[in-house]
Amino acid sequence: MSTHFDFDVEQLDSSSAARAGMMHTPHGDVPTPVFAPVGTQATVKTVSPDELLELDATLILANTYHLYLRPGADVIAKLGGLHSFMGWSGPILTDSGGFQVFSLESLRQVNDEGVVFRSHIDGSEHSLSPERAISIQEQLGGDIIMALDECPDPLDRDYNRTALDRTHRWAERCLKAHVRRDQALFGILQGGIFPDLRRESARFLTSLGFDGYALGGLSVGEPKAKTWEMLDITVPLLPLDRPRYLMGVGSPEDLFEGVERGIDVFDCVLPTRLARNGAVFTSQGRINLRKAEFAENPAPIEEDCTCYTCQRFSRAYLRHLYKAGEILGLRLNTIHNLHFLLDLMRRMRSAILEGHLDALKQQFLATYAPVEDSANQRADALAHRRGKHNTNG
Amino acid sequence: MSTHFDFDVEQLDSSSAARAGMMHTPHGDVPTPVFAPVGTQATVKTVSPDELLELDATLILANTYHLYLRPGADVIAKLGGLHSFMGWSGPILTDSGGFQVFSLESLRQVNDEGVVFRSHIDGSEHSLSPERAISIQEQLGGDIIMALDECPDPLDRDYNRTALDRTHRWAERCLKAHVRRDQALFGILQGGIFPDLRRESARFLTSLGFDGYALGGLSVGEPKAKTWEMLDITVPLLPLDRPRYLMGVGSPEDLFEGVERGIDVFDCVLPTRLARNGAVFTSQGRINLRKAEFAENPAPIEEDCTCYTCQRFSRAYLRHLYKAGEILGLRLNTIHNLHFLLDLMRRMRSAILEGHLDALKQQFLATYAPVEDSANQRADALAHRRGKHNTNG
Repeated sequence: MSTHFDFDVEQLDSSSAARAGMMHTPHGDVPTPVFAPVGTQATVKTVSPDELLELDATLILANTYHLYLRPGADVIAKLGGLHSFMGWSGPILTDSGGFQVFSLESLRQVNDEGVVFRSHIDGSEHSLSPERAISIQEQLGGDIIMALDECPDPLDRDYNRTALDRTHRWAERCLKAHVRRDQALFGILQGGIFPDLRRESARFLTSLGFDGYALGGLSVGEPKAKTWEMLDITVPLLPLDRPRYLMGVGSPEDLFEGVERGIDVFDCVLPTRLARNGAVFTSQGRINLRKAEFAENPAPIEEDCTCYTCQRFSRAYLRHLYKAGEILGLRLNTIHNLHFLLDLMRRMRSAILEGHLDALKQQFLATYAPVEDSANQRADALAHRRGKHNTNG
Repeated sequence: MSTHFDFDVEQLDSSSAARAGMMHTPHGDVPTPVFAPVGTQATVKTVSPDELLELDATLILANTYHLYLRPGADVIAKLGGLHSFMGWSGPILTDSGGFQVFSLESLRQVNDEGVVFRSHIDGSEHSLSPERAISIQEQLGGDIIMALDECPDPLDRDYNRTALDRTHRWAERCLKAHVRRDQALFGILQGGIFPDLRRESARFLTSLGFDGYALGGLSVGEPKAKTWEMLDITVPLLPLDRPRYLMGVGSPEDLFEGVERGIDVFDCVLPTRLARNGAVFTSQGRINLRKAEFAENPAPIEEDCTCYTCQRFSRAYLRHLYKAGEILGLRLNTIHNLHFLLDLMRRMRSAILEGHLDALKQQFLATYAPVEDSANQRADALAHRRGKHNTNG
């Protein structure tokens, strides 16, 4: 266990499994539940670290796979680690690289030792093992790092059975390999959509004693009802005093579902990716600024929104920037979408502390129209992964 | 003459034709000499209006041709004009659209009435006349607007002879058409590299009485010595109490040349375009951040630079952002390059006020290594323009 990481539960919700808490990290405290913007390549796409501060982002995620390949974990280590490299002095979570590697077209070989893959940048061959995943993340220097897991098709029972055993052995090796006590190490539960495997994973990993627990292999294309069923089954088996992290979620409506089931930490590319496609969140649901109807619309994206974009710019201007291919538009949309989700999480946290989370959810969903495709943001990775398990060497 | 625009000369340089002055506009004062960042499509590419404020930009340029086509001058007028539309409350200068139209592959016809051209966006046919150029610029609402001029190949005497007569008739019509007294109208001198034509243009246009005078048809591919010769010939013929604007300049070394010859206002895409190609200014000259030598370089672009980029980020990080295709990198490079030129202009202004402009120039050029290709940033337009005059209908 890390000597520099801790988690306090501040308040349990009376009508659900939700809780408000506080993660303590070497780079600051993170009030939970929290949504972590994704900074894949050591930058949350289009925004600066100072804009993240203005948005009151308290935790960001960076992707080990991408940073290992470019610029290289050794380069980042030489430059003082990720915080110094990217100019962000707040808490950072890095993933293990496993999810990206298992999503690659060029995944070459998986065996008990680890994974062999080819770089999507230059085709060069690389390998990743539990020990290597930890040492790379130690070089990157995130506050929270993740164990290496195998990420199977969530619907394939045979593969999940095999992969789960491997994930568990890898989890043990990650714990052994981890030497930096200033970093928290989270284990990742797998088991697809299979209740017995999920239970087994929860029991096994909690027996090892991680600083926190992530739910992996969800939000990758499985039916949404199954996602929530797996949470209902798994979360009660996790220790109350450790943070729980649902990877790859999500949309506003899914964040409510996760929080109600006791999840503390979320990450997703949804708000930033949507923004770059011209899609922005409003209290009524998502709208796309590309639409001709906004061409002369002098209103901000959302009338009472306090974000920089809404304080300064009209839908008409944002549409113009999008249509004209201007980079500023991508940034302004991103700032609004991040604000929307971060603000929603802050409102959920307040609601939990004040005992009216369910009322907030009802109020939010009374006007917000969810978009079907937003449920499974990692689903595009599923196609790549289907059939991958027969490449096991 | 505008009732809302004025220009004061504050100090004449003792050793050159340089002067320090102040332009007064409805949206604020502009200390001169000044470099205006280019915001072609109602945004200085990659930066926000607040970043321009932080950079102490005092004047920006927007392109009438682009905004007329998209989103449309009528749309911008409905949304309260350019200042309101783009969230920039400082002074704005708009060009007439002429330079872009005369650079178009799809220029269809030029006659005394005006120009017929096809949109580069959708191929639709449009026409521009002096009256139309003014009315569009009145809709856009810039503080300084430009007369429509014909932009010939600077080396073609016959074309320049014909074009100059037309430019002068158009200048008269622009003055007549202009009704918004809160906007200053500048005339544009033409005449290619031909001293007699340049003198004629200066005498004719100053006899009409514009709020300011621009030197057009320069920095478009002619030898640099000719550019400065035309300034030496022309500027002394312009009234002392009106601002002089050299369009399309420029590079640090060319800004010195222009200022010494009595130019007050400059604009150029150079700093912003270079930035998006990874090239940034330093006191030693331009460097390109793409280079492998910067991969592990922990230094900022320039050690004692006070811009946001240099205060927060290393060359190694900026190189990473560029190589990884991350949009933040384009912005950070742009901020640095704009700061470099804006700061250089502020230093020139102080030097004029304090009587040591020549010393500043010697000191700057002692370390700064100019790049040859930076001289004529509008040169790429020249190829399009060559031979265009035989399309006159």
